[in-house]
Amino acid sequence: MADDEALIDDPRDGPRADDDAGRPDDRVDDERHDADNRLKPAYVRAVVEAIEGGERARAYALVEPLHPADVADLFELLDAEQRPLLAAAITDLMSGDVIAELNDHVRDDMIEALAPEAVAEIVEQLETDDAVQLIEDLEPAEQAAILAEMEPEDRAAIESALAYPEETAGRLMSREFVAVPEHLTVGDLIDYLRDANAVHLPTEFWEVFVVDPAHHPVGTCQLSWILRTPRNIALSDVMKRDQTLIPVTMDQEEVGNMFQKYALISAAVVDESGRLVGQMTVDDVVHIISEEAGEDVLLLSGAGDGDINEPIRDAYTARVRWLIANLGTAVVASAIIAMFGAAIEELVALAVLMPIVASIGGNAGTQTMAVTVRAIAMNQLTRANTRRMLWREMRVALLNGATVAVLIGLAVAVLFTTQLGGVIAAAMMINIVVAGLAGVVVPVLFERLDQDPAVASSVFVTMITDSMGFLAFLGLAVAAGLGG
Amino acid sequence: MADDEALIDDPRDGPRADDDAGRPDDRVDDERHDADNRLKPAYVRAVVEAIEGGERARAYALVEPLHPADVADLFELLDAEQRPLLAAAITDLMSGDVIAELNDHVRDDMIEALAPEAVAEIVEQLETDDAVQLIEDLEPAEQAAILAEMEPEDRAAIESALAYPEETAGRLMSREFVAVPEHLTVGDLIDYLRDANAVHLPTEFWEVFVVDPAHHPVGTCQLSWILRTPRNIALSDVMKRDQTLIPVTMDQEEVGNMFQKYALISAAVVDESGRLVGQMTVDDVVHIISEEAGEDVLLLSGAGDGDINEPIRDAYTARVRWLIANLGTAVVASAIIAMFGAAIEELVALAVLMPIVASIGGNAGTQTMAVTVRAIAMNQLTRANTRRMLWREMRVALLNGATVAVLIGLAVAVLFTTQLGGVIAAAMMINIVVAGLAGVVVPVLFERLDQDPAVASSVFVTMITDSMGFLAFLGLAVAAGLGG
Repeated sequence: MADDEALIDDPRDGPRADDDAGRPDDRVDDERHDADNRLKPAYVRAVVEAIEGGERARAYALVEPLHPADVADLFELLDAEQRPLLAAAITDLMSGDVIAELNDHVRDDMIEALAPEAVAEIVEQLETDDAVQLIEDLEPAEQAAILAEMEPEDRAAIESALAYPEETAGRLMSREFVAVPEHLTVGDLIDYLRDANAVHLPTEFWEVFVVDPAHHPVGTCQLSWILRTPRNIALSDVMKRDQTLIPVTMDQEEVGNMFQKYALISAAVVDESGRLVGQMTVDDVVHIISEEAGEDVLLLSGAGDGDINEPIRDAYTARVRWLIANLGTAVVASAIIAMFGAAIEELVALAVLMPIVASIGGNAGTQTMAVTVRAIAMNQLTRANTRRMLWREMRVALLNGATVAVLIGLAVAVLFTTQLGGVIAAAMMINIVVAGLAGVVVPVLFERLDQDPAVASSVFVTMITDSMGFLAFLGLAVAAGLGG
Repeated sequence: MADDEALIDDPRDGPRADDDAGRPDDRVDDERHDADNRLKPAYVRAVVEAIEGGERARAYALVEPLHPADVADLFELLDAEQRPLLAAAITDLMSGDVIAELNDHVRDDMIEALAPEAVAEIVEQLETDDAVQLIEDLEPAEQAAILAEMEPEDRAAIESALAYPEETAGRLMSREFVAVPEHLTVGDLIDYLRDANAVHLPTEFWEVFVVDPAHHPVGTCQLSWILRTPRNIALSDVMKRDQTLIPVTMDQEEVGNMFQKYALISAAVVDESGRLVGQMTVDDVVHIISEEAGEDVLLLSGAGDGDINEPIRDAYTARVRWLIANLGTAVVASAIIAMFGAAIEELVALAVLMPIVASIGGNAGTQTMAVTVRAIAMNQLTRANTRRMLWREMRVALLNGATVAVLIGLAVAVLFTTQLGGVIAAAMMINIVVAGLAGVVVPVLFERLDQDPAVASSVFVTMITDSMGFLAFLGLAVAAGLGG
């Protein structure tokens, strides 16, 4: 993966005629994109017509002005049968950048259709971190076959990345960075970067790491500082010694939080002995941040991957597992109702009203759970303020409970009997407060047990709110002498 | 806001002795932070003891090595009464950077305690975009009072930002950037940047925009390209003409999507006539991405802000509104149950089993809704592939429905009667398929009506799944002759 093809020609080569080829792509509100940067259906249809009609040249002309990320989007919008047609029509445009940008599932499908040698060729075009992303999700047998076809150097880089656990800095980092010793001046550094024979610089970099003889980072220099400083000044007078180092074992979600908190553009990754081994840049981290922040809503509902390109079988297995778990909690709640069967027979209004208590309790529990899970994910909720947050949620629950209880109590008192109104009001109050408690305690407990609170909490919180809802309402009703 | 205080001294001034003051802060696994970069409770307690005991010097020494973002975190972890004590103990450390990093609600509290002149002084230390963030959430009267106390230049910058709608590029952009004419060489640019009298360069920048005489961007130069190019080469031969321009009216969520999709570090913001008016850098956008991606889970449950520092009154009003709306849908469902009151009186098992159908239907609906809402937010779901996605969700729903129906049907057939088993199986199948349909159609409909699908969908989807659940089960039971 040395000297990866950049999106533009080597800047030292002079004018770039091909930059002006074709109509310029504005990315927003042009022939291909709408105002929100999405590909227009009319444009997509035109491409589909061209490839299905065998008009390869026309398809090529339509697709050529697009940025690789948009070419990848186009593949995603096509059907499974149309994708190979497009790939065949635009072979020249299928650069490593496009492959790297493809949606995971779409890419897996395309990879499966190719022989290991062909895949190895593609992988060798990619930067190490993109190559790793492509390879890590394949079956071990496929992985081995592809790695066997690769150049030893490239294979070694990928294997060293795969040695780290998934979703850690060691797996995700780029192994290319600029690191220089402390004694250089700004002028020395600029000359080094300009040297046409310079060993293997990264395609893009935003800062330069300064290391000691043991390869430990001692400071960083943003490129803007270097450009603004006269040549004779020593780097050690320009660099910032206060730096944020990412341990190679750090989980991707924490890396994302660090980048966000400290407004980092890039950061050095160090191994256990403090040696500089890699770099993470914010454009890779941005994907992580978005994914990690967005996954809570999917995890809390057991929706799995949430990727609409996921094979149906995978979506089914992930979601049905969740539905079956919820079936269990629903059955527990039904068992509680069964205990009050006689009362319901006597007073059918109990059956009519009981779902209201359970339902609103469930909503209140979900609200609190969502807030708690997000606060944990953003490191806003820690041991230092858990008790305070719990107390806050209790107060909000009391206010909510009182309001809802009064409303439903009055409505039921009017439509049924005053006694029933009082019972449902009391049950509602109890259930909403319990829901608020559960919505904080359950996620926090899972966090302390080192489990992902978003994954495990909702089944338990739902069980608590459903069961408590029915128990409180029917129990109070019976205690009040209703239902015979 | 000219020449904002950078975190480090002007690089042209030589050695930086104060960088080594105090114990270095590792940010991970040191005396102050745990392995996940959170402040240790023991450390927080030590700070609290110091400020409550009036030991200002000790508090200062404890806090001094922290990055401004960590000082801001510390404020967040303290109680409302402790925060002013901390602020008083570390006045020198309360730089613009700390203020800018403070949680919105915490900052609002502190600002409210100060006179407009004092606030104006703080605001003038900040960069325009941070100043705007601080000011935009204040009451108009307060805003006016503070703006009146500011220097005309700074006030004008803020007012021009406030002229744009909230959460648009025009409001969020930085007005400081480096823009140069096309005819310069690399050498000219470097000399310009080094000129100690150079007009007002931004504290940090990552690329240089190249503009034509009408101030329209014609290309961009990443700093790494400039550093690697000999001085005599013309900028127009180094720059990339293919660029991503952000319209000044673009919504922040779309800006975030663009940055993520095109792996941007910074991007030019242009007005309606295409003139370069500002710049957005990825570290600001990262906050937007995280916030926008994470808010779906809060919106879908009506949890409001989700910020645990939000005043209780605000959390209450946001959430209770939601609970009351759900009260409405629960009452609709109860009305349906009431229609079958006689059947329930005859066969209490109906009351015991009916919540199961509604509950699992609700889960299935929530799953599909979560997937659809995320896909819409990430521009994965567009008009070009909506039909395909709907068809996919139908198939997943059929598989889920069949599985769950068989399981619960068998269990009920064993525990109750075969007839009841058949009825609940059929009702479950119907409700899960309906839930799958609703979970896609409702969010997509709101998206087409230009409403935020995450805000409005769940009340409607819940109403559909609850009502259909009870209707299908009780209706089929009565049709099958159960319940007399």
